[in-house]
Amino acid sequence: MTDFATTKSMFHLPEGVLYLDGNSLGPLPKSAAKRVESMLKDEWGQMLITGWNKAGWMGMPTGLGDRIGRLIGAEPGSVVVGDTLSIKVYQAVASALELNPTRRVVLSDNGNFPSDLYMADGLLRSLGPDYELRVVDPQDVAEHITEEVAVLMLTEVDYRSGRMHDMKALTELAHANGVVTVWDLAHSAGAVPVDLSGCNADFAVGCTYKYLNGGPGAPAFIYVAPRLSGKVRPALSGWLGHEAPFAFDLDYRPGAGIERMRVGTPPVIQMAALSAAMDIWDMAEMADVRAKSIELTELFIARVEATCPDLSLASPRDPAQRGSQVSFHFDEGYAAMQALIARGVIGDFRAPDIMRFGFTPLYIDEGDVEQAAQILADIITNKLWDKPEYKIRQRVT
Amino acid sequence: MTDFATTKSMFHLPEGVLYLDGNSLGPLPKSAAKRVESMLKDEWGQMLITGWNKAGWMGMPTGLGDRIGRLIGAEPGSVVVGDTLSIKVYQAVASALELNPTRRVVLSDNGNFPSDLYMADGLLRSLGPDYELRVVDPQDVAEHITEEVAVLMLTEVDYRSGRMHDMKALTELAHANGVVTVWDLAHSAGAVPVDLSGCNADFAVGCTYKYLNGGPGAPAFIYVAPRLSGKVRPALSGWLGHEAPFAFDLDYRPGAGIERMRVGTPPVIQMAALSAAMDIWDMAEMADVRAKSIELTELFIARVEATCPDLSLASPRDPAQRGSQVSFHFDEGYAAMQALIARGVIGDFRAPDIMRFGFTPLYIDEGDVEQAAQILADIITNKLWDKPEYKIRQRVT
Repeated sequence: MTDFATTKSMFHLPEGVLYLDGNSLGPLPKSAAKRVESMLKDEWGQMLITGWNKAGWMGMPTGLGDRIGRLIGAEPGSVVVGDTLSIKVYQAVASALELNPTRRVVLSDNGNFPSDLYMADGLLRSLGPDYELRVVDPQDVAEHITEEVAVLMLTEVDYRSGRMHDMKALTELAHANGVVTVWDLAHSAGAVPVDLSGCNADFAVGCTYKYLNGGPGAPAFIYVAPRLSGKVRPALSGWLGHEAPFAFDLDYRPGAGIERMRVGTPPVIQMAALSAAMDIWDMAEMADVRAKSIELTELFIARVEATCPDLSLASPRDPAQRGSQVSFHFDEGYAAMQALIARGVIGDFRAPDIMRFGFTPLYIDEGDVEQAAQILADIITNKLWDKPEYKIRQRVT
Repeated sequence: MTDFATTKSMFHLPEGVLYLDGNSLGPLPKSAAKRVESMLKDEWGQMLITGWNKAGWMGMPTGLGDRIGRLIGAEPGSVVVGDTLSIKVYQAVASALELNPTRRVVLSDNGNFPSDLYMADGLLRSLGPDYELRVVDPQDVAEHITEEVAVLMLTEVDYRSGRMHDMKALTELAHANGVVTVWDLAHSAGAVPVDLSGCNADFAVGCTYKYLNGGPGAPAFIYVAPRLSGKVRPALSGWLGHEAPFAFDLDYRPGAGIERMRVGTPPVIQMAALSAAMDIWDMAEMADVRAKSIELTELFIARVEATCPDLSLASPRDPAQRGSQVSFHFDEGYAAMQALIARGVIGDFRAPDIMRFGFTPLYIDEGDVEQAAQILADIITNKLWDKPEYKIRQRVT
């Protein structure tokens, strides 16, 4: 059993703050500052260039990849860390398209991150006018999976509502139609159990600064199914993905397996912070995290619905259909969220009217949820955002 | 006048090490650990998600870009930091190609970084069989600049020999032939004066972990000439390059000017370390750095040629044709470099036979160069690499 009291004690959580925005940026692991300091002083400072081998910097992208892989049902050696999520989306979609060279359609939905759609759109424009990014409503995805589609690019958990796609069913349907899949796990990794191997997924990508707590600008990760990684020509053919990076050959030859999805020099300082976060994740089982997450979200929904009738649930009511967040529609949502933040409850707002709250069992417990719901009730019941002096007096600095 | 004694005192240089590999990875600025610790504890730890605005993380890529821009003759607002150099090469070449849509050839040379060639090759393969990466000998570049060429992609300073291209002349010739230019400044930024604006350069890219001392995996930078940045459709169309990233529109609209070359979430921890390095650069004038660099390289060449007749200069003899490094051919170069490193003089080796030494006036002075040359002479004269016990007894740990 995961010991959540211990994991909570391993994060720095500022006094007077109830942090329900770990789905945007996770909090600081207490050990991160020391870990990074040691990386700077003992490794960079003392070893200089030799740190790439002596301190093991070169192996960090795959080492961290495997630790993340455990949380998402990935086979060892199938995940590598690097770049940003946008770049990894581009790399995955470009590589997936090359595995399906006669087709021209990338299918996605309007519940996907706009950033993923932008990257795919940019890629397809480069490839030529025959290519099409087809964006449908989330509930219509299945019926649009046809033999015309080259790549299905979806985010499993909707960033606004928390609605989850059925990864296994859609992947099966995609394969039955000869479609290659790219799953974005930005709101899944560390939030819900993912079974990439069991779903027979092809490509997956995700970020490490949200539920994984790797810090602002922490690198992304990419998964390629072992049955595919030897066949992929990485569109972003970088030198660290070369079979022999230090031979400095003029011609590119892709490295073995997942190594070929590496591109340029990985961000060692960011990876040091991420490794401190993964130490905490190493103590956690996703089944426990999921069970606790459902308790917390159910509790929050019950409290808010009991006290704030003007808020209407924007997330699926069935926890099995929902990620680790809860969203409510509220016309005054933006102002109410500002007031809430001024009172120390940090959630966020997504246009046009969504108040969004993330639940992260590693450091949020029932007591936090009860308190946050109480403060929310106070703000909504008394329309505190209307009081001009309010935010100034109460602002958390 | 740049005060090099002061700048030297601002770096941590390990006891007993003469570091002539700052062209691979610069050393640790003494203030970097504190800066990063403060970013972690006071910003990430206390501000959490609000750090993006309150701590100014969102503005760091352009703020750092302008500080780097001063060193490379870039107009304010024309440089942005992010991603890796490989990604920035891809982005620059892809964007440059779109400005020249009727042509299909990218011209480069075999003195370029293989990694740049890999990225361009991968891009051109994606675009289709009509596209060609044409790689010629460095001295033949000018005669291959024709109206067939879409993009000229060159690294100004050869990473092995230090030979410099004439950026101004080649850019002029390129423009006269309707060719868009992409200059890689990896071995130029902080090494030699660069005048992008005066050269009328189109695109430039570079990294910040070599001469700029930003740390392992520090982000890259990209320059786009102000006259072009409003016309560029960024092939890597990421959400932070969007006109309104937080509107979460489904359609991509490029941001103003250089902002559109941003892609995903920037690496805040790496940027904090880089900002400590740039504090030192803010105290330096590139003209002084160049004058001192020439003194140091001339001194090293003179000493080595006087004491090691078996080594032959692989760098241009004329300092005006040479970057801030000196390379020698030597048949036993690999073994000799290992022995040298064991004696605390860190340079590096590049196949097949090149011993490479970087000279970085911010923290290397005449005394260091004299000492390094003496140790090299001892090793070469006495063939110390042949003594099996040697490395073990003398190894710097």
